[in-house]
Amino acid sequence: MNNITGLLGIKYPIIQAGMVWCSGWKLASAASNNGALGVLGAGSMYPEVLREHIQKCKKATKNPFAVNIPLFYPQIEELFEILFEEGVKVVITSGGNPGLYTQKMKKLGIIVLHVIANTKFAKKAEDAGVDAVIAEGFEAGGHNGRDETTTMCLVPSILQHVSIPVVAAGGIATGETMLAAMSLGAHGVQIGSRFAISKESSAHELFKSYVVNSKDGDTVLTLKELAPVRMLKNDFYQQVLALYQKGTSREELSRLLGRGRIKKGIFEGDVHEGNLEIGQISAVIQSVESVADIIRKIITDYESAKSNLFSFND
Amino acid sequence: MNNITGLLGIKYPIIQAGMVWCSGWKLASAASNNGALGVLGAGSMYPEVLREHIQKCKKATKNPFAVNIPLFYPQIEELFEILFEEGVKVVITSGGNPGLYTQKMKKLGIIVLHVIANTKFAKKAEDAGVDAVIAEGFEAGGHNGRDETTTMCLVPSILQHVSIPVVAAGGIATGETMLAAMSLGAHGVQIGSRFAISKESSAHELFKSYVVNSKDGDTVLTLKELAPVRMLKNDFYQQVLALYQKGTSREELSRLLGRGRIKKGIFEGDVHEGNLEIGQISAVIQSVESVADIIRKIITDYESAKSNLFSFND
Repeated sequence: MNNITGLLGIKYPIIQAGMVWCSGWKLASAASNNGALGVLGAGSMYPEVLREHIQKCKKATKNPFAVNIPLFYPQIEELFEILFEEGVKVVITSGGNPGLYTQKMKKLGIIVLHVIANTKFAKKAEDAGVDAVIAEGFEAGGHNGRDETTTMCLVPSILQHVSIPVVAAGGIATGETMLAAMSLGAHGVQIGSRFAISKESSAHELFKSYVVNSKDGDTVLTLKELAPVRMLKNDFYQQVLALYQKGTSREELSRLLGRGRIKKGIFEGDVHEGNLEIGQISAVIQSVESVADIIRKIITDYESAKSNLFSFND
Repeated sequence: MNNITGLLGIKYPIIQAGMVWCSGWKLASAASNNGALGVLGAGSMYPEVLREHIQKCKKATKNPFAVNIPLFYPQIEELFEILFEEGVKVVITSGGNPGLYTQKMKKLGIIVLHVIANTKFAKKAEDAGVDAVIAEGFEAGGHNGRDETTTMCLVPSILQHVSIPVVAAGGIATGETMLAAMSLGAHGVQIGSRFAISKESSAHELFKSYVVNSKDGDTVLTLKELAPVRMLKNDFYQQVLALYQKGTSREELSRLLGRGRIKKGIFEGDVHEGNLEIGQISAVIQSVESVADIIRKIITDYESAKSNLFSFND
């Protein structure tokens, strides 16, 4: 046990990221049933859909699970009411001011983690009273910070500035990358891409196989004028690139992005016209596996890499 | 001993990066005398200046040291002649086609390492016959790749594609970050920023203290239209940014960059008008130390972090 497993009441210091169009009750309950913290991604759910996923998740696992709430969610008040009514015990907030809801949640006994990408917001989150921060590096998929600090550099910086536990995110998908994150001093890891293409992920099979076939250099952090997101360089990205090359505006980018691009790509499997958000580490993932197999392999590979580590004392 | 220490004949699998205006004979010989591989940075030296540094380095250490050659160096043939005449035993090449000079060096018994930032060039370097690749991530200072792949994601990708040893670079400055890199499966590490501001670095004291006072988010990868470089966001960078904001051209950026901007910043200590190239990990470096102290601390912190690593078996 360490301070993350103890805090969250989980067996392994592994959090399955709450990803839009991937992280429904099937993925979250599988992660929780296999010793990690399962997380529902509320970002792609209408309030009543979220309620249904919470209820199904409660039936599918007796272990703790969490809900990820992007704080820019339009019906945010309604969403929080559902969390409170359903008695969700762990909430992960991201993309906004942690000061707004943290104290209310803490009073209800909810454990709160907040996603940050720099020391300034890590300190703000600590001051707001969150229990831990998730430090997400530049290599992570989907929404990303503006500072572009990588996991390798972000985690040590955050550890120098806060005293609450730090969970590393971005670039972690294997036992070796988890060991690297723990070496930096992280108390746990959040894993996105590998679970996004797990069997239990609600992403479309065409999205999953597109990711499996991608290689290093195939993702890009773009749309920085709107909000930086990391995605695969598919046909849709080529359209984004064409706008940049002719000189574009925020409005034009926003119009191209439109509504439903992520759903189209990830959930409906339109790998050409959809926005395929995924992390850089997707390049090393070579198959679609069950959550049980993924977690088992991560543990085996972690311990094996750990016992093979170079020692100056040899 | 592992395959990097064995290959290079060094005690620790640590390479001191050959950095312009930092890595002269004082830094390189100090690194070599303290068990790492010292490296002269030829990029900022006229051919005859390099010869002088090689000769002084040979006098200052009996241990192996290397010369870093950017393959876009204008008087490249002259530079190689000097390496051959002076009997340099290890050469690190970067920023060009490793096919051009590798075989000639191998015939002379020189050990060749080549810096790469994606799997495509790693395979090219392996095919060209280099002894090892240095896989440099997005977080690294100075010249950088176009794919923006971070060390955490790059090293595992490269290991999947080549069978020669892989040295990790970018984001490594401490025992913990070295342990992270070795966890990824790297056979050794190249450390830049921390040695750039060591006592033995030929960088100006004003540059060193500017770096010590910098924090996370203070560097940026920019000038991508010319060749991507990571630098601190000082006044000079604000001028670059102003050009971008009004809409600029390759020519205009090139004119602003001019000649001697890096020398002005790093060697002459003009922290306002100079180009202050440094890596993201500079944010965690908090003092100017001697090379002996740096290496000693890295080893101590590495072993300490290693023995404190989370274990699933506990």
